[in-house]
Amino acid sequence: MEKFFWIGFLGAVIAGVFALLQAKKVLGYSEGTEKMKKIASSIRAGANAYLKHQYTTVAKVFVVVFIILLVLAFAGHMLSVFTPFAFVTGGIWSMLAGFIGMKIATNSNARTAQAASESLNKGLRVAFSSGSVMGFTVVGLGMLDISIWFVILYFGFGITDPVQFGNIMVMNGMGASFMALFARVGGGIYTKAADVGADLVGKVESGIPEDDPRNPATIADNVGDNVGDVAGMGADLYESYVGSILATFALGATAGYGFNGIILPLAIAVAGIICSIVGSFLVRTKENATQASLLKSLRTGTYTAAVLSAIASAILCQVILTENQWGVFVAILCGLIGGCAIGYFTEYYTSDTYKPTQKLAAASETGSATIIIGGISLGLKSTLTSILIVAISVLVSYFAAGGTVEIVNEAGAFTEAFNKGLYGIGIAGVGMLSTLGITLATDAYGPVADNAGGIAEMSGLPEEVRERTDALDSLGNTTAATGKGFAIGSASLTALALLVSYVNIVQTKTSELLNFTLTSPTILVGLFVGAMLTFVFSAFTMSAVQNAAQSIVVEVRRQFKEIPGIMTYEADPDYGRCVTLCTKGAIHEMVIPAILAIVVPIITGLILGPVGVVGLLGGVSVTGFAMAVFMSNAGGAWDNAKKYIESGHHGGKGSDCHKAAVVGDTVGDPFKDTSGPSLNILIKLCSTVSIVFSGLIVACNLLNLL
Amino acid sequence: MEKFFWIGFLGAVIAGVFALLQAKKVLGYSEGTEKMKKIASSIRAGANAYLKHQYTTVAKVFVVVFIILLVLAFAGHMLSVFTPFAFVTGGIWSMLAGFIGMKIATNSNARTAQAASESLNKGLRVAFSSGSVMGFTVVGLGMLDISIWFVILYFGFGITDPVQFGNIMVMNGMGASFMALFARVGGGIYTKAADVGADLVGKVESGIPEDDPRNPATIADNVGDNVGDVAGMGADLYESYVGSILATFALGATAGYGFNGIILPLAIAVAGIICSIVGSFLVRTKENATQASLLKSLRTGTYTAAVLSAIASAILCQVILTENQWGVFVAILCGLIGGCAIGYFTEYYTSDTYKPTQKLAAASETGSATIIIGGISLGLKSTLTSILIVAISVLVSYFAAGGTVEIVNEAGAFTEAFNKGLYGIGIAGVGMLSTLGITLATDAYGPVADNAGGIAEMSGLPEEVRERTDALDSLGNTTAATGKGFAIGSASLTALALLVSYVNIVQTKTSELLNFTLTSPTILVGLFVGAMLTFVFSAFTMSAVQNAAQSIVVEVRRQFKEIPGIMTYEADPDYGRCVTLCTKGAIHEMVIPAILAIVVPIITGLILGPVGVVGLLGGVSVTGFAMAVFMSNAGGAWDNAKKYIESGHHGGKGSDCHKAAVVGDTVGDPFKDTSGPSLNILIKLCSTVSIVFSGLIVACNLLNLL
Repeated sequence: MEKFFWIGFLGAVIAGVFALLQAKKVLGYSEGTEKMKKIASSIRAGANAYLKHQYTTVAKVFVVVFIILLVLAFAGHMLSVFTPFAFVTGGIWSMLAGFIGMKIATNSNARTAQAASESLNKGLRVAFSSGSVMGFTVVGLGMLDISIWFVILYFGFGITDPVQFGNIMVMNGMGASFMALFARVGGGIYTKAADVGADLVGKVESGIPEDDPRNPATIADNVGDNVGDVAGMGADLYESYVGSILATFALGATAGYGFNGIILPLAIAVAGIICSIVGSFLVRTKENATQASLLKSLRTGTYTAAVLSAIASAILCQVILTENQWGVFVAILCGLIGGCAIGYFTEYYTSDTYKPTQKLAAASETGSATIIIGGISLGLKSTLTSILIVAISVLVSYFAAGGTVEIVNEAGAFTEAFNKGLYGIGIAGVGMLSTLGITLATDAYGPVADNAGGIAEMSGLPEEVRERTDALDSLGNTTAATGKGFAIGSASLTALALLVSYVNIVQTKTSELLNFTLTSPTILVGLFVGAMLTFVFSAFTMSAVQNAAQSIVVEVRRQFKEIPGIMTYEADPDYGRCVTLCTKGAIHEMVIPAILAIVVPIITGLILGPVGVVGLLGGVSVTGFAMAVFMSNAGGAWDNAKKYIESGHHGGKGSDCHKAAVVGDTVGDPFKDTSGPSLNILIKLCSTVSIVFSGLIVACNLLNLL
Repeated sequence: MEKFFWIGFLGAVIAGVFALLQAKKVLGYSEGTEKMKKIASSIRAGANAYLKHQYTTVAKVFVVVFIILLVLAFAGHMLSVFTPFAFVTGGIWSMLAGFIGMKIATNSNARTAQAASESLNKGLRVAFSSGSVMGFTVVGLGMLDISIWFVILYFGFGITDPVQFGNIMVMNGMGASFMALFARVGGGIYTKAADVGADLVGKVESGIPEDDPRNPATIADNVGDNVGDVAGMGADLYESYVGSILATFALGATAGYGFNGIILPLAIAVAGIICSIVGSFLVRTKENATQASLLKSLRTGTYTAAVLSAIASAILCQVILTENQWGVFVAILCGLIGGCAIGYFTEYYTSDTYKPTQKLAAASETGSATIIIGGISLGLKSTLTSILIVAISVLVSYFAAGGTVEIVNEAGAFTEAFNKGLYGIGIAGVGMLSTLGITLATDAYGPVADNAGGIAEMSGLPEEVRERTDALDSLGNTTAATGKGFAIGSASLTALALLVSYVNIVQTKTSELLNFTLTSPTILVGLFVGAMLTFVFSAFTMSAVQNAAQSIVVEVRRQFKEIPGIMTYEADPDYGRCVTLCTKGAIHEMVIPAILAIVVPIITGLILGPVGVVGLLGGVSVTGFAMAVFMSNAGGAWDNAKKYIESGHHGGKGSDCHKAAVVGDTVGDPFKDTSGPSLNILIKLCSTVSIVFSGLIVACNLLNLL
């Protein structure tokens, strides 16, 4: 069965070719007027400059970690000597995924604006094609990464024991996660600092519209969409995709499926790529399309892909597995349905076509304080459905896939038990992300449309163009929320799978039987530390936005004051300074949270040992998931409540209610685009870091010494 | 040793006599002018009316739960037939604690204002004496409750097996917790709805000062201080106090100390009462006292009490225990020091004499959105120290008190192990609360000073009186934050102790050895549900304040519009209507969160069985603790950032920064006085509910049936 490794390369090739074709199509469109070209090129230049800075900084950190890993590997504390190299390659692939996505996005924004000036359908096609390039690049690179390491390990070094193979592969996720965290956090800080800064002084204080060319931070704001919502998200979802597959590798082998358990997730992913391509052909709309029909068109594409993927999975389970085929299929189905259900409820809580967001908009009647309280309350409440869905998915996929085989020794006492059920949880995560190609395309098209709107506004295109790009953008908010739902949902399943892999791996390294009972004080303290890490990490990402945004606010105010004529269009603001400030701020602020994510699990391990680490991972997974859902949904609801008011409710634009809603939206920005999405990387990074450093931790920890 | 049960009665008598003497002293002061008397009597009337409503509603719920418990007891699903009765008496004592505290507070407010018009020292003495009545009533009633049940169970029904005795006693906490939750949530909603409503329309929209007699919500606001910060807090801390002692009872017996382990926490509590009385004699200040010297005076009292209590505990450990005396003493010391450390860091994060709050105030320069983001970030960050302190306290008290005695069977496999270490965690919680008499006095004096300020303002006393009451009030904010730190810190230790008791009790009810390994999907799902309960519960308490506050905002606006002459003092506003609206709103909104706390653990148990419940309790304890710290500290910091600006920084009162800070303060109100403090009751109530219903859950749950 392991000979079917080439199926991964097949997936990579299909995805790559499709992405290339889409890219060619997009680049064939016109970029519009000279002014549009100039603006687009400023945005491109800003985005490139930022990414260059970011990659330089990240590279330094990667070198340090690489050396540490190498030293540990030589000292014999590393399960696999490949880990340091896999760490670096994972980081590079993840970076590439974000980079290519951003390249195409910054080359599609003006083209989308130009296409939208011709027709809405054309605008949608260009933006969506650009999103597709990103979506299929991510999955294609993921398949490539996994397949290359497959060949190196299996054929190159002859690692043919499936358990050993799985355990080595699972560590390869660390580099991708680490890079993704930097990209998400750094990009998230950049985009929100620029957005908050531009909004606070421009919209609130000076009363000029969004993307107004008089606002010195407007280019930075548009750059932010690309480096945060595109490059950051690309790296993030690359990590999610690869992480879910690698985690399942490790569990497949220990569940007793041998290499069949490893080939299955790979095959499901490849089938998902093909289904996504089919689905993406269905995304088109009529000329006089309403927003509802636009959404329907995107939905037709994603739901078709999901149904096809489910059918393909059923067949693949029959072909690849020799036992328990239907049970594993039910687990995959759990993931697919769970993902859609989380997506639906995310939309319910954050879209202004439903009651929660409408009620939130009404809270603006009594001022900004009540809309803040209302949004926080809405976000907290929304964890109810997401957590219930994950809970049901976990239980059903676990028991359907074979449940627990309890190992009881002769004395009737409990010994540890690893089993087929856990493989079910892992593969549910793979199922949830199997159609990532198309879900990511619907997600990544949003920032392109957003940018197109900005370019239309700045280059003075007719009002109707802006209306069309607004329709596309507004839809993008909904699909972005859905996409985040998928990312977070799959993260919770993957994190649980990684947690179990950690326990498996740690237990192989010590002869003493470790006790992971919840009531042990070490586990309890670990849980507390896990919750703390989640909270403190969120605090740092929030305050990072705060700090960077404050510097932008000060700068924009300064320009308005010191450059006379900005307001009367007689002088150009200094866009470049805001771009530079955002870049510096984001790079400076992203380091602490990223380091935190890698250092806290290691320190916890050195003090509390592997048992404490298991507590930490449990705490960070559970709290991190709840917090991520809370933050993303609260932020999304504030954003759409503001849009709802802008569309004419509660006094419309410029009213007191609108001002209150802008405050809500501003608070929501770091919630939904910085802290929230970073958390789903955090919970997986903690697990892979713990797995990679498990050798060191088992050999040397304080509790053991006492 | 069990014959020393009378020591509890001794504590009750000492505390009661001291409280009575203090009450007599307070009531000997003059209530001031006719106008002051009239205002005070309106506040009293409003508070009484609210409590009457609240108690009527709660009584209905108590009757329903009582009947359910009775039915279960007859059906044999209850560990103890006493539980239904203990449930009711616990509720009544807890209610009484809040009620008496509120009675004395509403009779001390005008007296404090009058005394402050004579001198600052006199004002402090009256307010502090009033706080002392509450503090010592709470501990006195707690001792009485425990001692009476001791006599009934031990002498009346001959339950002389310490394990059985401890397990029955621990269930007696449920009634107190349930009542406390209603009091905290209902009172919290009332006080914050009135406060938010009064602030939003009065301060922000109309620009009139706090407590201005023209504000229709001002009496409701002052009533709120009494029903929330006094009656609610009294019931809350009664529950914490009794809960920590009862949880330790259960662990003392199973740790092998027999009745010695039960008498020790009782004796420490009694010693704490005496030390608190000594400490409270040291609280006095010179006439020209600054705020710093006021704080020093309160600190001298509490720290002296803590040191004396530590010495007394050392002696009591030697006298009462026959083994491991110093280890247990170290655990107690952990609690005492941990409590003080949490108090210190709470102050660090929330007082405007330190950098975090000053930095937060500076964030107001860029508007309300950035001060909101800053406050959330500050609150999240502040979990770092609190959680580290609890983590260290747990580990040190666990290992010092004897650690784990691992029970390994012949096959070398792990069986469950319960031990002396866990008793250490429980008794650390008792240590932390042992000087509650005086810490609660310093805490409860705050709302009295706050009310006194309101009365001074409304009755037109000279400016200097208001300045004096403001000095007292501002200090009250700091001590209140410290007090909340104690309550939350002890809650985490007590929750862990109760969690372990639950495991002990459940294991006695089933012959199969339960597996509480963290990686079991049932435990993991339980953890998720626990986090969800925390988030959703917080959402409901937040939105409750939101809903109730919005009705007040609408009403105040209506009065300003429809009653001409309010602004020119020509007409009186209709205070009564705001009082009624707050009462109705609070009663209506408190039911869902309270029911949630009792229903979710039961439903979780019925579906996932006892293993799932253990996960739930772990999740709710950890997430609830982190969330409570976050909310309390963020709220406290916003409040004090506003005060810092009012004292002349960043433009002072009326500036844009001040307006932004008022928004922050308003958001912080439900954080720090409703949701945050309710969480520490929630985490214990979940545990006691689970313990009480454990018989039912073990006998009948879905996972068992499958």
